[in-house]
Amino acid sequence: MKNLVGACIFGQSGGPTSVINSSAAGVFTEALKHKNITAVYGAAHGIKGILDENFYDISKEDPQELLLMKNTPSSALGSVRYKLKPVEADETDYIRLLEVFKKYNIKYFFYNGGNDSMDTCNKVSKYLLAKGYECNIIGVPKTIDNDLFGTDHCPGYGSAAKYVATTLMELCLDAKVYDKGQITIVEIMGRNAGWLTAASSLAAYKGLGPDLIYLPELPFDVDKFVSDVKTVIDNNQGKCIVCLSEGIKTKEGLYVAEAIAQASAQKDSFGHTQLGGVAASLAELLKQKFGTKVRAIEFSLMQRCAAHLASKTDVEEAFMAGVTAVRCAVEGYTDKMVIFERQSGKDYSIEYKLMPIELAANTEKAVPLSWITNNGTALSQEFIDYALPLIQGDTKAPSEEGLPRMAKLKKVPVNK
Amino acid sequence: MKNLVGACIFGQSGGPTSVINSSAAGVFTEALKHKNITAVYGAAHGIKGILDENFYDISKEDPQELLLMKNTPSSALGSVRYKLKPVEADETDYIRLLEVFKKYNIKYFFYNGGNDSMDTCNKVSKYLLAKGYECNIIGVPKTIDNDLFGTDHCPGYGSAAKYVATTLMELCLDAKVYDKGQITIVEIMGRNAGWLTAASSLAAYKGLGPDLIYLPELPFDVDKFVSDVKTVIDNNQGKCIVCLSEGIKTKEGLYVAEAIAQASAQKDSFGHTQLGGVAASLAELLKQKFGTKVRAIEFSLMQRCAAHLASKTDVEEAFMAGVTAVRCAVEGYTDKMVIFERQSGKDYSIEYKLMPIELAANTEKAVPLSWITNNGTALSQEFIDYALPLIQGDTKAPSEEGLPRMAKLKKVPVNK
Repeated sequence: MKNLVGACIFGQSGGPTSVINSSAAGVFTEALKHKNITAVYGAAHGIKGILDENFYDISKEDPQELLLMKNTPSSALGSVRYKLKPVEADETDYIRLLEVFKKYNIKYFFYNGGNDSMDTCNKVSKYLLAKGYECNIIGVPKTIDNDLFGTDHCPGYGSAAKYVATTLMELCLDAKVYDKGQITIVEIMGRNAGWLTAASSLAAYKGLGPDLIYLPELPFDVDKFVSDVKTVIDNNQGKCIVCLSEGIKTKEGLYVAEAIAQASAQKDSFGHTQLGGVAASLAELLKQKFGTKVRAIEFSLMQRCAAHLASKTDVEEAFMAGVTAVRCAVEGYTDKMVIFERQSGKDYSIEYKLMPIELAANTEKAVPLSWITNNGTALSQEFIDYALPLIQGDTKAPSEEGLPRMAKLKKVPVNK
Repeated sequence: MKNLVGACIFGQSGGPTSVINSSAAGVFTEALKHKNITAVYGAAHGIKGILDENFYDISKEDPQELLLMKNTPSSALGSVRYKLKPVEADETDYIRLLEVFKKYNIKYFFYNGGNDSMDTCNKVSKYLLAKGYECNIIGVPKTIDNDLFGTDHCPGYGSAAKYVATTLMELCLDAKVYDKGQITIVEIMGRNAGWLTAASSLAAYKGLGPDLIYLPELPFDVDKFVSDVKTVIDNNQGKCIVCLSEGIKTKEGLYVAEAIAQASAQKDSFGHTQLGGVAASLAELLKQKFGTKVRAIEFSLMQRCAAHLASKTDVEEAFMAGVTAVRCAVEGYTDKMVIFERQSGKDYSIEYKLMPIELAANTEKAVPLSWITNNGTALSQEFIDYALPLIQGDTKAPSEEGLPRMAKLKKVPVNK
């Protein structure tokens, strides 16, 4: 643990969320306060911006705009999906990073992202340690998938969950409005972890939610699904709302859309497969089975960028995650990721802690199987108790002519 | 014009909106105040509920819940798509309606809907007039499509437009976040009128909107579209956001998805056509042309039921449209639809007026061609000036545990 003096750099990585910029605001406003931090840089497109020496001088930004970042979705500095090769396989990027860190006297590195980004952050941290280059490195978690190991939950999840639950309540009122049968299938993000799809159960908890929920934690059986839907429509005048994760797979490990395409290709000698996601594929299947109206809906990018519907709890926690990263780094901590530890007691509260960053890299935390109930189609009260505090409170960008006033950064380039 | 004494009945019809229940709240709260109105009924599923004698006694509802309807999306009484045949072709339904009206001494009939619903309302009105049955009938407009003739705009449009513009701003930040090219195609509701798609230009007006906008008012040329996109991506590091109406058609009058399917079927001797909407079809086409990442997004039902993002102006106007319908009917007006007349002057204001209902029935108001600019890919300042006042102000349901507290009606059936 060393108190270092030098510049700091912050990067955003992976899929954007409603609150990744709130963490940036936390990092920047805090970093600008510390005299040990001699310059505050924002990397354009994460690690790529560092490799390319493409970064911005944050001290040139209007402090008011930095605060507006709290309610501006996506990644204001630009994001990236760039995987560093293992150093044993190819040291090129690492050598280049060290060169840039030395050139700008970077002594603090903060990286904001999910599993893959924490892997990057971990690799950089371990390399610089091995090379004896002193730099305090802290990862700031974010992901709407909520699948990072070691933290009670991830910044970004609460807001996406609030979007999913609120929108489901509205859809539930809309999709059941006619006196005719209609099946609605909603596809929600989540390749391997069903946390976000599970949030649809918060709408059900309020009496306006899906009838059936399917998470990727359990293998998906198409025949059982058809039978589950049949039971619901037989008891609800032909109406049924289904929520499912984009990543649901059959017990053979095939994505469901692929499995349906393969099965239909076997029947169809021309071998054509159908395009589209899992909701569209299952909708087509149900149309054929039941001859009823079936609508497939994808929450698409909206579920991760609907900052107008952000959770205040999430926005504030994301901000504090950034602040905590800076404070801990200045105190001398390094090679860590910020985590949230939920405190026991009746009222929800968390403490901000640190965890060795290698524990977060590339691991995935799934929804506990014991929380998945009703033969794999619902969530237990434990999930509601877990998720409900995370969606509390409203916050959004100030309104300007009826539309959100987003942060406008000057992005003054740092001279190479 | 006659002052009548008797029951009133109100029905909701056609596709729901964020504010159709606000008009219901206006009708109900106002109707309950008038001593000439001896009973207030809500028809289940519009005209169908009247034919079936399936309606609710609104006086039994908690007044607080009626007010919560202002921020509860969809059609709380249930909606319907039921077209009355011309009376010359089949009088059955009309005879039945008259029977029900007589049985319950219904002297006031309010019907809330778009073109088709105003046609229904008009037919009922003309039939009862012809039969000498005194009943004051007023149509209450609503449609996110904003295509009703004779009114400056329609309740429901402002909120849907606010959803479209706000979501586009958020999407614009998200979809351009990477340092790689990506084309995003957003499909927005509107079969024949492009008002709602045009609202995406409000996001562009704020600097975070689509690069290209296509409305059904102009024939859609696939080759021109590909060339338009090419120009944008060549000048924007491969990034482009397109908004288009679901109803865009080729100059031959074919829906674009159909036209693409036909063209591809000609090439494909098996004659298979592709499933999905116009955005998905065009996305597939662009993927093949440019080999870049293309994402199709449909705003689907969300655009018409996102009451959490409603325009306060729209919610209040929808409420007052309902109030106006009742007041005018009690004063003795009949055979009319409520319209909004925009007043001249710097500040936006409207007056509530009446128009002969037959003028609204089955006519469609398109976006003026002179407002469509940039070779059919943008909207003029006239459109911005027209639409911007309609999305002003925020309002939403009160929050309960972080989620909207929607109206809960008892729906006490009226004894047959």
